[in-house]
Amino acid sequence: MPRPIITLTTDFGTSDHYVGALKGVILGICPEAQIVDISHEIKPFAIAQGAFTLAQAYPCFPPGAIHLAIVDPGVGSRRRPLLLEADGHRFVGPDNGVFTWALDRDPAWRARIIDAPALYRHPVSSTFHGRDVFAPVAAHLARGVPVEQMGGAVSNPVRLVLVRESSDPAESIAGVVLSVDRFGNVITSLRREDVPELSEKQFELAVGTVFVRGYRKSYSDADEGELFVIEGSSGYLEVSINQSDAAVLAGVGPGDSVFFRWRAGLVPEST
Amino acid sequence: MPRPIITLTTDFGTSDHYVGALKGVILGICPEAQIVDISHEIKPFAIAQGAFTLAQAYPCFPPGAIHLAIVDPGVGSRRRPLLLEADGHRFVGPDNGVFTWALDRDPAWRARIIDAPALYRHPVSSTFHGRDVFAPVAAHLARGVPVEQMGGAVSNPVRLVLVRESSDPAESIAGVVLSVDRFGNVITSLRREDVPELSEKQFELAVGTVFVRGYRKSYSDADEGELFVIEGSSGYLEVSINQSDAAVLAGVGPGDSVFFRWRAGLVPEST
Amino acid sequence: MPRPIITLTTDFGTSDHYVGALKGVILGICPEAQIVDISHEIKPFAIAQGAFTLAQAYPCFPPGAIHLAIVDPGVGSRRRPLLLEADGHRFVGPDNGVFTWALDRDPAWRARIIDAPALYRHPVSSTFHGRDVFAPVAAHLARGVPVEQMGGAVSNPVRLVLVRESSDPAESIAGVVLSVDRFGNVITSLRREDVPELSEKQFELAVGTVFVRGYRKSYSDADEGELFVIEGSSGYLEVSINQSDAAVLAGVGPGDSVFFRWRAGLVPEST
Repeated sequence: MPRPIITLTTDFGTSDHYVGALKGVILGICPEAQIVDISHEIKPFAIAQGAFTLAQAYPCFPPGAIHLAIVDPGVGSRRRPLLLEADGHRFVGPDNGVFTWALDRDPAWRARIIDAPALYRHPVSSTFHGRDVFAPVAAHLARGVPVEQMGGAVSNPVRLVLVRESSDPAESIAGVVLSVDRFGNVITSLRREDVPELSEKQFELAVGTVFVRGYRKSYSDADEGELFVIEGSSGYLEVSINQSDAAVLAGVGPGDSVFFRWRAGLVPEST
Repeated sequence: MPRPIITLTTDFGTSDHYVGALKGVILGICPEAQIVDISHEIKPFAIAQGAFTLAQAYPCFPPGAIHLAIVDPGVGSRRRPLLLEADGHRFVGPDNGVFTWALDRDPAWRARIIDAPALYRHPVSSTFHGRDVFAPVAAHLARGVPVEQMGGAVSNPVRLVLVRESSDPAESIAGVVLSVDRFGNVITSLRREDVPELSEKQFELAVGTVFVRGYRKSYSDADEGELFVIEGSSGYLEVSINQSDAAVLAGVGPGDSVFFRWRAGLVPEST
Repeated sequence: MPRPIITLTTDFGTSDHYVGALKGVILGICPEAQIVDISHEIKPFAIAQGAFTLAQAYPCFPPGAIHLAIVDPGVGSRRRPLLLEADGHRFVGPDNGVFTWALDRDPAWRARIIDAPALYRHPVSSTFHGRDVFAPVAAHLARGVPVEQMGGAVSNPVRLVLVRESSDPAESIAGVVLSVDRFGNVITSLRREDVPELSEKQFELAVGTVFVRGYRKSYSDADEGELFVIEGSSGYLEVSINQSDAAVLAGVGPGDSVFFRWRAGLVPEST
């Protein structure tokens, strides 16, 4: 029997003891677990970035893998602990939208509010549910404890709003910055299909301190130093600049807002 | 039989080949080892930070786990290589105080000076005992080699001095900065019980370039931009500032000194 | 049977989902794989640094280990995917010089151009061969698929040129910066044996914005603030400065050029 896989996506960083503590708790409960780090460098409290990063990675894992996602600004408040079965995978973490993509991809998802104090690590701290609640639940799940023992079904898990229509949806939409890659490309939550006929449009994308007005189909089509919008490999619109760092130039990071509008009267790109 | 756990706490960083080399050596000797990173981001040579980070993480691991800690400014000198059994766990690393907490928590600790050249990786370099001495010893320990074959007992392992009394212990104490978390909170080596009736005292805590005079029971009690002392989740006094980075403001890092004094004549907090 | 080892050396960083995706693909194909990170902090596209880092680490692993190295500026172009057996180890990655050291150390190396679409992850993207080509091939190799099924033999794998002679080889040579360690020491591709009688020579080493003219046998021989050349623990000449960061001072990083010349007329070190 293959070893059960538990992946970790957190905003803990790797300097402190937090990640080690999680792994110790998991191995104490399920010694045969295969623990895999996806990322611990999510910007603190940036739920959308954590959700996006997990969404990009989890489909590469074999079905049945357990994915622990802990980006949890609401720890200690009334936000609910969630166990989700969706898209052939299992997810454990706070009910704050961090599993939005799996919910969107699989209409047959099944969610539960975790309510199994007998499985927790005691005493349960008010600030570190990753160690005391989520890691133990994931490890017991890996050992074969049935989901029915973890808590009751729920029909309304939180989803992030990634695209918001404006008062005039024919002319503009808004989104958020999902992530910034290590080359400074700004990955937005807007998809090309959110803006029909994009390459023929005169548009204006506002992000941080800049306006972007050019669309390019490949990096090699852009002039050096030019800011432009491109469809990235993840299927989302990205803001890039040739040979430089668009996120630094625009002064933006995960969670910041993006506004996209197209309408008559906008200054065309060439002027 | 569960796979033996070996954790790693070092100041090697993760850019260079050092951590990979350690793991290769371990797996060559004990292929079934379950290797877990606690942190490789300890500030170079900051023994107190390494000791504190390990102390926070190791109790989360199952009993019998082996913890390798390599923060070793004295490599190549006469500092002794140590094997420690304490608090249900096993520890391997330099005898420089990096295991202070385990020694303090378990009066029944047993320590040995490692002296088992037959187990080392040869030739033993003068600069990389992690790879050539500590990793092989930990791996052989994981394979079941008895501790008696690793070296003779010793009664005086090094402990860090975390709290120093001043000439007038009724009025002041000194400590060190144990760590700085990713939010910039400065974790000191002073505990609340080191300063009786702290919340009623007029005090002054000097760290780096700042003096701190306020004590707060929770973050929400502090004004924005206010520097204050708080009891952190680890049980130690921390210096924090609301929505900003206290370590940057004070210009301090792991290993720096902290002075705490309370006496008549100090300017009260409210002025 | 011990679990097959697969190491990873990449320029992906650890913030994004890329490393997690690689590991998911590997575990989907070979659940018993023991995956070990060597480094994901190679400077983007710095092949020489990736090659050097892997070369320092792989000999510490047991024979038969599989080493995946993905520093791949040519992804999507015509650079060839390579499978190499050398020095008792196996290597998978782009044919761009990243395995130079293993080729140099073992004249009996055997190389193959990977050509096994049935083993790839489909659809194969144009930008992420690590996930779609190299990781699957490494995982199938770990499962026992014979190398003969991976592609045909090739006699000319790419090697990096680490030392270049000038027009007058008796007077000068050129190399590259292999890496910069976390203390700022600049590790060059020049070895002490490349410059006979180095310690008796008047020389000048040009790197970035500085000229270095002193050779020291140990760090303690150097004055504070002095720039000097020293033979590092890896056997390569390094540029260091006492208690400071030589790479920052010189403004150099992996892949930059280094020029070394010695001849009459050079200003001696003492002036």
